[in-house]
Amino acid sequence: MKIHKTSIIEDGAKIGSNVSIGPYSHIGRNVVLGDNVVIQGYCEIGVHSFAGNKKPLEIGDNSLIRSKSIFYSGSTFGTNLITGHHVTVREGVKAGKNLQIGTLTDIQGDCKIGDYVRFHSNVHIAKTSKIGNFVWLYPYVVLTNDPTPPSTKLLNVVVEDFVVVATMSTILPGVKLRKGTLVGAHSKVRNDTNQNILVSGNPAIEKGPASKIKLNKGSSKRAYPWAKHFHRGYPPEVIKEWKKKFKN
Amino acid sequence: MKIHKTSIIEDGAKIGSNVSIGPYSHIGRNVVLGDNVVIQGYCEIGVHSFAGNKKPLEIGDNSLIRSKSIFYSGSTFGTNLITGHHVTVREGVKAGKNLQIGTLTDIQGDCKIGDYVRFHSNVHIAKTSKIGNFVWLYPYVVLTNDPTPPSTKLLNVVVEDFVVVATMSTILPGVKLRKGTLVGAHSKVRNDTNQNILVSGNPAIEKGPASKIKLNKGSSKRAYPWAKHFHRGYPPEVIKEWKKKFKN
Amino acid sequence: MKIHKTSIIEDGAKIGSNVSIGPYSHIGRNVVLGDNVVIQGYCEIGVHSFAGNKKPLEIGDNSLIRSKSIFYSGSTFGTNLITGHHVTVREGVKAGKNLQIGTLTDIQGDCKIGDYVRFHSNVHIAKTSKIGNFVWLYPYVVLTNDPTPPSTKLLNVVVEDFVVVATMSTILPGVKLRKGTLVGAHSKVRNDTNQNILVSGNPAIEKGPASKIKLNKGSSKRAYPWAKHFHRGYPPEVIKEWKKKFKN
Repeated sequence: MKIHKTSIIEDGAKIGSNVSIGPYSHIGRNVVLGDNVVIQGYCEIGVHSFAGNKKPLEIGDNSLIRSKSIFYSGSTFGTNLITGHHVTVREGVKAGKNLQIGTLTDIQGDCKIGDYVRFHSNVHIAKTSKIGNFVWLYPYVVLTNDPTPPSTKLLNVVVEDFVVVATMSTILPGVKLRKGTLVGAHSKVRNDTNQNILVSGNPAIEKGPASKIKLNKGSSKRAYPWAKHFHRGYPPEVIKEWKKKFKN
Repeated sequence: MKIHKTSIIEDGAKIGSNVSIGPYSHIGRNVVLGDNVVIQGYCEIGVHSFAGNKKPLEIGDNSLIRSKSIFYSGSTFGTNLITGHHVTVREGVKAGKNLQIGTLTDIQGDCKIGDYVRFHSNVHIAKTSKIGNFVWLYPYVVLTNDPTPPSTKLLNVVVEDFVVVATMSTILPGVKLRKGTLVGAHSKVRNDTNQNILVSGNPAIEKGPASKIKLNKGSSKRAYPWAKHFHRGYPPEVIKEWKKKFKN
Repeated sequence: MKIHKTSIIEDGAKIGSNVSIGPYSHIGRNVVLGDNVVIQGYCEIGVHSFAGNKKPLEIGDNSLIRSKSIFYSGSTFGTNLITGHHVTVREGVKAGKNLQIGTLTDIQGDCKIGDYVRFHSNVHIAKTSKIGNFVWLYPYVVLTNDPTPPSTKLLNVVVEDFVVVATMSTILPGVKLRKGTLVGAHSKVRNDTNQNILVSGNPAIEKGPASKIKLNKGSSKRAYPWAKHFHRGYPPEVIKEWKKKFKN
């Protein structure tokens, strides 16, 4: 265990074996860190519990939280969480395994996130968002929740499995992005999408099946479903499952 | 008074009663903190004054500055300021009471901000912006100031009372958003707006009176002016005033 | 030399004369800081080298890195680098002199950047981007690199000399912005541009020569090429060169 001498670990924090905690980090009293977790420097892990709040923050085995990130208490993350720097995650998140959260991403809390989800840098997830498995959200993507801001009515976005949202796109309140949807860059999506369809523009309109997009100009190889060809960072059992699922 | 032992408080800082300062925070010598102010950890409060600069930074009573935020000296904030994390506020800001500044928001300085203004996460306020009272700016809203970048000519944006700008919208230099304007998400606004009008799109065009938007589908209840129905977090005297103002 | 007592300087770091390092900053073992460099507080300089990695990070003379910024090892910066706060710069950057990197900007690494480049706040530079000299990228500009996300194929953006990209614009993968291109605010650029042309919109289309834009309404003075009239912060020898280059 490598706990830097300048870090602050509150009494009550449960810390697994082989955990590393960097300089100037602060770990609250209701935090539960799994085995082999790395917390880099200047992090605040379990913020509310600094003040005595009882809700735990659970971080699964083999997770890596990069420096200057802030996690509130009252959330649960599966194994193999990886974050960038300057990340903010509020309370009430229930996330599966192998979540990646890019630098500067801001998760507002009270949301559900499946397995193998990847948020790139500077993504904004509004409260009450529901996100499936194998989802990709690229930089400056915003999931919203208030149809008539400001109001007390929250209409959450639903992002189903294998959805990809390209950079700088906004998903309006209550919109459902169905399985395999591809949202083009710099789009505003105000309607539910059909499965495996490309939508793009401001406002976004249907451009056709995502499967028509080729991986290279002049090639016959299809870029979508992306899980047929893009396997970097996924474990063998996931790739094996995809090979069955996306046979044709 | 709870001043964490790892914080750095420079000689000359004026600190009110019942103030709390978190771990690793740095308070400069010309800072004036009101009573009951909470500064969380890793903050830098009064940056220029670290180097001996004379301009004070004044933070009103009952304010809460969340962790990893940076305030330069040479600004004044009224009572009840609340910020998120990773906030940056440069010099020359004159802000009223009950300002909220969301996580990652970047205020470039030399600007005026009224009372009860709410910046959500990741808002960018260019220098010389003028913002009224009861304004809402949502995530990734950008107020600009340079009509021919780069140039030395600054044309500030004016945002009047009760204006709402939805997420990911850019307000071009010199634009005046008149009272009660609602800017739809992902818009680029290049012309002054009329009062109480919805504008939307890229470029934004008039879509009609904001008051035509209903609070719920099929309902007869109007969503705008929002102050008629949205009262969360405002004190009784403000709500009373609104009830008179928005009677019909 | 003013090294704050709370900073961590690893053995092996090479630190020039008259260097200042602020509170709580961490300098890795393969870092080479030139003369008169200022590192403010809470910075992490040479991140990979904290773990013993051998690739150096070189920061040229007279540079200023503002607080809470993170630089990985394995990059080189010329003299007079200036950054804002909360900046993140990954490994593999080769940058010229007088680079400015605004607050919250995120440089993903493996990219080339010329001399006198200015990134404003919250710019996102994808891996493998190539940026010339005297380029301006304004807040929330995104350079992308993946034509069919997610994929392993990277098509880098090329930004040539004197290009200006206004706020909230996305440059799609493989696009070349030719010399003197001006991209209007809130645009999505999917095609290579011609020299000295204004493109704008979503998708961006050609609007005509940038030189037709006047510096003031009703004036005959041209706003572009901007280097003819905007000289703030550039040294005399650069301005002299521009005067020859942009004579007519």
